[in-house]
Amino acid sequence: MQIRPATEADDDSIWAMLEPVFRAGETYCIPRDVSRDEALDYWSGAPHRVFVAEENGILLGTYFLTPNQKGGGAHVCNCGFVTATGTTGRGVARHLLSHALHAAKAAGYRAMQFNFVVATNTRAIAIWESHGFNTIGRLPGAFLHPREGYVDALVMYRAL
Amino acid sequence: MQIRPATEADDDSIWAMLEPVFRAGETYCIPRDVSRDEALDYWSGAPHRVFVAEENGILLGTYFLTPNQKGGGAHVCNCGFVTATGTTGRGVARHLLSHALHAAKAAGYRAMQFNFVVATNTRAIAIWESHGFNTIGRLPGAFLHPREGYVDALVMYRAL
Repeated sequence: MQIRPATEADDDSIWAMLEPVFRAGETYCIPRDVSRDEALDYWSGAPHRVFVAEENGILLGTYFLTPNQKGGGAHVCNCGFVTATGTTGRGVARHLLSHALHAAKAAGYRAMQFNFVVATNTRAIAIWESHGFNTIGRLPGAFLHPREGYVDALVMYRAL
Repeated sequence: MQIRPATEADDDSIWAMLEPVFRAGETYCIPRDVSRDEALDYWSGAPHRVFVAEENGILLGTYFLTPNQKGGGAHVCNCGFVTATGTTGRGVARHLLSHALHAAKAAGYRAMQFNFVVATNTRAIAIWESHGFNTIGRLPGAFLHPREGYVDALVMYRAL
């Protein structure tokens, strides 16, 4: 599995990974009827840096890295991660996160913050925690899950 | 003191209130050299609803009200508040917050979230707390204060 910067030629493959996740509406605060262009703009729009995990010419996952705030908050970064349907259990998310932590540190960020981790997304939370993230806050009922109703969201943070 | 929706005719007066706050760089994650147009776009750009507090034709403060997230997070709102230089102690911020809480509830929001309250901004924190906001998380060193160096930022939240 190779992780490399994304190019425009990856747009179709990235959208193919994003679409089922955004349509499901269970993990990201994105309208479930988001269009391809809106989704790619959200994922890849400036100032995001986008990476993809590739194996034998097939994309297995993608992440973006971006400052979480501007001005006095620009030394803390934010990331988003999506893995391709059917790759569960192959460690793609862990590889992406590990790459992101190195890329963020190399870029001079001092910390990484996840603003909104849906509390029912226990698989992701376990990965973040195993890589040193702490839950620094819990937002009560902040996410309307399509099947679970109002569920909490976590703010997670780790120094770099 | 009357609080009313802002119009384009208020832009100069709103910028006059925003400029010293953003130039000081002590409370908002906005580059200190932000331009007038960038600042107004940040404050008043869609989907923000903007209000101003006015007395005898003079603007004393302004706030915006906006969804804090899209999709499954759109039922939680976010606000930003700025008061005019020289109005400290006149209760302008309290009036704006009280108005915002009513406007948010009337618009159907279920909660209000402040994502990034700089911990040294104790005056604001005292006002938010006195109006029912809880600190649900503390982001260590997340803000680079121009005089204090790296200081914490708070995530504050209250149900509506």
